[in-house]
Parts: sequence; C-alpha cells; structure tokens
Amino acid sequence: MLTLYSFGPGANSLKPTLTLYEKGLAFEHRLLDPSKFEHHSDWYKAINPRGQVPALDDGGRIVTESTVICEYLEDAHPTEVKLRPDDPWDRAQMRVWTKWVDEYFCWCVSTIGWHRGVRHMAQALSEEEFEAHLKNIPIPEQQVKWRRAREGFPQDLLDEEMRRIGVSVRRLDDHLADHEWLAGSAYSLADICNFAIANGMEKGFADLVNKDDTPHLVRWIMEINARPKVREMFAKVPREHLGPPKAA
Amino acid sequence: MLTLYSFGPGANSLKPTLTLYEKGLAFEHRLLDPSKFEHHSDWYKAINPRGQVPALDDGGRIVTESTVICEYLEDAHPTEVKLRPDDPWDRAQMRVWTKWVDEYFCWCVSTIGWHRGVRHMAQALSEEEFEAHLKNIPIPEQQVKWRRAREGFPQDLLDEEMRRIGVSVRRLDDHLADHEWLAGSAYSLADICNFAIANGMEKGFADLVNKDDTPHLVRWIMEINARPKVREMFAKVPREHLGPPKAA
Repeated sequence: MLTLYSFGPGANSLKPTLTLYEKGLAFEHRLLDPSKFEHHSDWYKAINPRGQVPALDDGGRIVTESTVICEYLEDAHPTEVKLRPDDPWDRAQMRVWTKWVDEYFCWCVSTIGWHRGVRHMAQALSEEEFEAHLKNIPIPEQQVKWRRAREGFPQDLLDEEMRRIGVSVRRLDDHLADHEWLAGSAYSLADICNFAIANGMEKGFADLVNKDDTPHLVRWIMEINARPKVREMFAKVPREHLGPPKAA
Repeated sequence: MLTLYSFGPGANSLKPTLTLYEKGLAFEHRLLDPSKFEHHSDWYKAINPRGQVPALDDGGRIVTESTVICEYLEDAHPTEVKLRPDDPWDRAQMRVWTKWVDEYFCWCVSTIGWHRGVRHMAQALSEEEFEAHLKNIPIPEQQVKWRRAREGFPQDLLDEEMRRIGVSVRRLDDHLADHEWLAGSAYSLADICNFAIANGMEKGFADLVNKDDTPHLVRWIMEINARPKVREMFAKVPREHLGPPKAA
C-alpha cells in the first residue's frame, strides 16, 4: 500500500505525484494544507521529522526527498511505464538534470514564490502566533527563511534570484532547442522534475518565459501539459492558492 | 577506456576515485593541479565547460558531477563489488545520504576549507593576475566565491558554516551509533561520498570530531581508512597541500 503525503501538484510535491500517475500506480493521496502549516504538525513530523513534504509511505517504510522518491518508485515498483533511460549515459544525464533542479533551479524560483505567497501567510500572523509557529519548524534554515519572508526578502537577494531564474530558463531553452526531452530520447524523471518547477512560468515569469524568448521551453511545457496522465493529475488534485488575500 | 579527471583524493574528487578503486576498474587518472588553476584552463573546459572536477571520460562520453559519476559506474560498469544496496528502500536511504552531502555537508566544510587554503592562493595573486584569472571561471557563483575568498569570508558566514559542520558531524555520529554503515547493511556510495568530506576532520576539526564527542564517526572513518582499496588509493594518488605557504 502506497500513501503519498504532499501539497498540491506544484514544485517538489508535483514530482512524486506525477511519477505515480504516469506509472499508473494506485496510491492513497494525503494532501496537507500549507496554509494550516500541517507539515509542521506533530502528526506529520512523526512521519517526516524534518517537517517537509513530500513523503511516501510504502507499507510502513517512509521515503523522503522528492527526487529520491521518484527513483525509489522506479526501483521498487517497476511498471510498463519507464521513467529512467536504459542507457547508463542517458541515465547519468537524467541525474545531472534532477540534481540541478534540487541544487539550483528550485531554490531561485522558491524564493520568488515565497516572496509572492508565503510572505503574505507569514505577515498575516500576529507576532505571538508567528513566534509560536516558528518553534514547530524543525530545520533551522527553514526558520530563517520564514523569518526573512515575514520581514520581506532584501531586494538584492530578490534581484540575484531573478538573475538565476534567467540563467535557468535560458539553460532549459537552449537544451530543448535541439532535444525533444531533457535526457535521452524519451520523457523521463528529468522532465518531470524540471516541469515541477517550470510549469506555470509562462504566467508567473512572463517576461522571461514566453514564445519569443524561450520558444522551446514553452513548447516542452505545453507538450507535458497535454499528456493524458498530466491532465488527469491536474483534474483530480487541487492546487493551492498561496498568494495575497483575494479582493472581496 | 575510462579516464578520470580529478584533483587528489579529497572532497568531490575522492568520490569517483575511490569508487573506481573499490570496484577494481582499470582507468587512466589525469590529475589536475588546483594551484595552477588547471580546471579553468581551455583544454579542461573543452571536457567540462563548467570548469569543475571531477569528470569521467568513458570512451568519449563525458560524465560530470561526482555523485552522478559514482552511480554511473555502477550502472555502466558492474563488477563483483556492488556499492549500491539491492533493496530499494536501502538504496533510497543511500541517495538521501549522498544528496545531503551535496546539498549541505560539503558546502559548510568547503567554505572553511577555502578560508584555510584557497584564500592563500587567491591572496598570493596580484590584482591583475586575480582579475585575469576570474575571467576564466565559467560559473558566476564560483567567481563570487573566489572574490570572497580573496577578500576574506565574513566572520558571521564562517560562524554559520561552523554551526552547520557541528550539525553535520552530530547527524553522522548519531546514525553511526547504531549502524555500522550509513545505508543498509553494507559499505556503499553513501559511505564513500560522506567519507570524501569527513576524512581528516579528526585533524582539521579536532574539537568537533574526536573520540570523546563523536566516537562512532571516528570509528567509521578509521574503518574506511583501513580498507585495502582505500589504502591503495592513498598510497598511489598524491594529495595536494593548499594551506598557507610553509615556513622555510
């Protein structure tokens, strides 16, 4: 029995969610509500002491770290749908791409996402509520990130993160200019893990990701969105809205 | 034909070097001299455009990123020596540990290593030499790191990195208190990749890593150093000295 604990289908939570859908594996989906800080609750920290989603429960054994979960699903639950290239060199390229997402691409996009979304959640709390909440966050670096989000990220950090996003989308577009997929000749975890971050950037980062400046990246995002399992996932799994409070 | 381009057996360069030795694979070892900035030379950037070691040439196909190279060697060149657990869950734990090295443990140790070693190299250059050299470094973030090394890292950064090193060695010692190896029941890439960073910390970080405070970590470092292939590697592959100039 597989149970996935995650937020809605975006960022790191999208990676194992889409992997499970693509592979056609049955699983129970326990969606946590980030606006209620459910990932920092005691019941969830009993599953993942780091208080981070996603986590996979496979018959009582917990697997954490989104990219690790994706490879685990390939190792432990092989199906006809293979999301890793067979050729070792292509597989290495897949891992270079998934590693790059985890070490570079996801972080710059994350800061801007926090600036636009989490900041409002953090600022909506009273000083007492906020400090009480911080105590529930087990990773010191995450506590710092919450504090910075509430205070407002410094402009030079936001500028640097935007520079890195520019570098990232350029790198993706350049590669996709003469490759249909990121690693090898077929759709793989490299595509899923990068799509997890890149999807929606045509709207959220429209001056960087658009048909004129990054036509190949936009083509690839559209192609992935058109896949039957991707459509099924987005139809079934609701996305959160973490932006500023909507006007009444 | 396998050719490994690397520095001597420490940090990221140690990972694939030791993996090749442990697996008993024949390879040509092209050692680059960091004090001559060979990794930023044009001939090497033709192999790895990012100007980083290690890189593996397998019959003309280049694999980069130390952890990716290690898994590639298991995929492409299986031998009787298996450095990944067979059990998928144990293998996932191995990947959590190698990922943690790449995203956390290696960076805090690296900053202190740069503070103690690379700083002296950078400061020994004239302003003109230094600026000319910076132009050869292809990764902007690495340029920034070189500049900070020359200027001297700010004390609050050094303090934070030392805090993270403390967290890291505590985490390793706690796990090794009731596990012989980091992932599963046997020596694996999790051990090799962590050893790459932890080896020598009994000397370089003696007030954090010692028989009183981290007995299990010290036991594990000694056990790995006693392995025949580790001894063979250290006997054959010279280590660099990047510290301050030695007194005459």
